[in-house]
Amino acid sequence: MPNPRSDKGSSRERELVDMFWDAGFGVVRAPASGSATERPLPDLVAADGERTIAVEAKSSGDDSVYIEGREAEELIEFSRRFGARARIGVRFDREDWYFFHPGDLHVTGGGNYRVKLEKALQEGEDFHELVGESTQEKLDEVE
Amino acid sequence: MPNPRSDKGSSRERELVDMFWDAGFGVVRAPASGSATERPLPDLVAADGERTIAVEAKSSGDDSVYIEGREAEELIEFSRRFGARARIGVRFDREDWYFFHPGDLHVTGGGNYRVKLEKALQEGEDFHELVGESTQEKLDEVE
Repeated sequence: MPNPRSDKGSSRERELVDMFWDAGFGVVRAPASGSATERPLPDLVAADGERTIAVEAKSSGDDSVYIEGREAEELIEFSRRFGARARIGVRFDREDWYFFHPGDLHVTGGGNYRVKLEKALQEGEDFHELVGESTQEKLDEVE
Repeated sequence: MPNPRSDKGSSRERELVDMFWDAGFGVVRAPASGSATERPLPDLVAADGERTIAVEAKSSGDDSVYIEGREAEELIEFSRRFGARARIGVRFDREDWYFFHPGDLHVTGGGNYRVKLEKALQEGEDFHELVGESTQEKLDEVE
């Protein structure tokens, strides 16, 4: 049976793929987690020969987004192996995408990560900043 | 209904994912072609922070492998955008994987690419060579 919530998440994820594509990147969406592989995978990986970015994408109709601790750890582990910048991408209804390194997010008592709408608007990296940064920063962040 | 031929191809592709993983790479398998996206996608992308490799993987129980012209072109286009080395990976029964740049393959009258078993054994790059090469070669090949 269709799940409107995941369908929406998936459509938002395609929107992000389009944005990377339009910015000149090659983009791969990973198969849904929990499938054939047990290995860490982000939702998508985009690169343009200079910048490589792994994104765990979350959307919300509410004023907070939660990311499971395990998802954030897998994003970091994948990014370390692949040589990518690790980013949580958050998309609130009627807002743009904002991006955070997992290390910059609030960790709840239960070990999950939370992004509030206000924090996204005030402190998040927007798409333009994400794809416009220099290679040097990427190299510094890999470890 | 299960298709034994694609199941075998898929299992061979997982084998290749395992090899990259064991060599320290992060690996993403792209969703099956013809799905949600119309954009060029390889079968998998692997990177380790130095080397980035996009692979179209083909296996065969016969003594030749054919790659559609369109698949090879999409591999090249994706690799150009992503900044990856483009490789056709061929796996014949009871043999190892061998890799070729599409430009080094025989093009048939119909515009498809063909790799014969003997050519793979004699001229193909083996996995060790593929992952052990320097970054410089990668940069030279991007265009």
